[in-house]
Amino acid sequence: MKKRVVLALGGNALQKNGEASAEAQKKIAVSVGEMVAELADKYEIVIAHGNGPQVGNILIHEEAGATEKAPAMPLETAVAMSQGQIGYWLTQAIENAFIKRGRKNPKVVTVVSQVVVDKNDPAFDNPTKPIGQFYSEVEAKKLAREKKWVVKEDAGRGWRRVVASPKPVDIVEKKAILELVKDGVIVIAAGGGGVPVYRTRVLKRVKGIDAVIDKDYAAEKLAELVKADVFVSVTAVPNACINYGTPDEQTLGALTIPEALEYKKQGQFKSGSMLPKVEAAMKFAKFGGEGIITDIDNLKLALAGKAGTRIKD
Amino acid sequence: MKKRVVLALGGNALQKNGEASAEAQKKIAVSVGEMVAELADKYEIVIAHGNGPQVGNILIHEEAGATEKAPAMPLETAVAMSQGQIGYWLTQAIENAFIKRGRKNPKVVTVVSQVVVDKNDPAFDNPTKPIGQFYSEVEAKKLAREKKWVVKEDAGRGWRRVVASPKPVDIVEKKAILELVKDGVIVIAAGGGGVPVYRTRVLKRVKGIDAVIDKDYAAEKLAELVKADVFVSVTAVPNACINYGTPDEQTLGALTIPEALEYKKQGQFKSGSMLPKVEAAMKFAKFGGEGIITDIDNLKLALAGKAGTRIKD
Repeated sequence: MKKRVVLALGGNALQKNGEASAEAQKKIAVSVGEMVAELADKYEIVIAHGNGPQVGNILIHEEAGATEKAPAMPLETAVAMSQGQIGYWLTQAIENAFIKRGRKNPKVVTVVSQVVVDKNDPAFDNPTKPIGQFYSEVEAKKLAREKKWVVKEDAGRGWRRVVASPKPVDIVEKKAILELVKDGVIVIAAGGGGVPVYRTRVLKRVKGIDAVIDKDYAAEKLAELVKADVFVSVTAVPNACINYGTPDEQTLGALTIPEALEYKKQGQFKSGSMLPKVEAAMKFAKFGGEGIITDIDNLKLALAGKAGTRIKD
Repeated sequence: MKKRVVLALGGNALQKNGEASAEAQKKIAVSVGEMVAELADKYEIVIAHGNGPQVGNILIHEEAGATEKAPAMPLETAVAMSQGQIGYWLTQAIENAFIKRGRKNPKVVTVVSQVVVDKNDPAFDNPTKPIGQFYSEVEAKKLAREKKWVVKEDAGRGWRRVVASPKPVDIVEKKAILELVKDGVIVIAAGGGGVPVYRTRVLKRVKGIDAVIDKDYAAEKLAELVKADVFVSVTAVPNACINYGTPDEQTLGALTIPEALEYKKQGQFKSGSMLPKVEAAMKFAKFGGEGIITDIDNLKLALAGKAGTRIKD
């Protein structure tokens, strides 16, 4: 039996040197596709991905190009749009990589995914995630009043809208995703952390809410729901490190949960960067699987236990 | 065994009175969701949908809001974005309608879909489908040179880009879609006629191409590929008519293929409006199923053979 692996591709995995055209991003998707097609010989693959730069640009276009007749889409719908966009590029790249390897009818699909958050998540009391374009203070405060946005000054660069980053608790499409995986389909799901939704209290209906769900946490939740063996946060560096950027810097290889927890307590992992990846990997290790952090070049070796930071219970 | 039904929802099915906000479109999606949840008791449902107004607005935003760092997405990628957007709204509305009816874990998913066209389709020699915003003649001709667009004057309203509307020949994700349908999942696929792609001649790789595939033709192709029993073009009127708009106007009910063909030859059906619907329904009847044209209010009756225009071999 093949091991089931969930790959969480970094939000910047499709953009290099800030080249944001569809053409440039599709070109990078080709190498992702080839890697996935190669891994698929040995593993069942499920893919989640970030959408930071892509949804950022969608929001910039939606806001700057909005007219009365063509109003801007809200963040939650923009996430769904980015799932279509990035999912299409990745699906096509993976299919073509299979075709290059002689496989006639590869089965690869992107599932538009809603990820459920708790409306009482404390993150909603303190929105911290900046999104969309920069505004002047006056404009920002006007928009805050008009659209009930929370706005903040962003590191001297201007004012931006900030939204909450709540934890994922469920994926609405989990059953269909699992059916597809069992049928041998490579599934791309929970893109950009998923379209953020919550369940209404009484009727348990699903409703969209403007928020940004961390893609590593969402991908880890996906890994649990599809009963994966391995969760990999694919990022820009081959390993997590301790004493990062100092003469004592040391890369981390195989780790137990208590070891990872100890380093976390020491503040070794940077919030908003390596910390969510280590936390997601630890959570998946607690679930009973293996949580890996590595880059695309070391992915194959890491899955063989020979590279990357690998956390197990 | 339940009959398998493919519904092709009109591009304007989610927009009424030109209300294009996400909120307004989600509100209309609710009634679509309730209809689908009701039909699902009796039928296996697969949904395709148009995207005319939505992809139009995406293109307007992409073009008007584009910057050097955040370039506009091309049409083919914009179609994928609209699939994410509309698919998300419809999925959520259908799920909530099921929850309202007491079903705990409804399985509904949107599959990002690539529809293959023939690069030698004669439609590419004569692009006719206007898309995106209006330009002055000078701007339009400049864009035509810069971006290799074909531009045309649009009925005295200004200049617009025109693209080809080739026929669909295949759906890349057909196997995964069929697996889902067999697993009892309500699938939303081939949105907006599908992301237009072609296969390269030698390697048979899939590549995006800027075009607009008619959503009725794409939905009919989907109906063939998922082995549906019934294809329904859900539009704004309850029936196709002959002598439309004259004192001799007559609604059409049950029709054979030769009868439909005869009316078509008489020029009874308007090109770009009723004609593609009748052609798609005829094509599906030739395939061996039943092709129906009706509106949402008559859908249930039409499926029971008591309303709508119904074409059978």
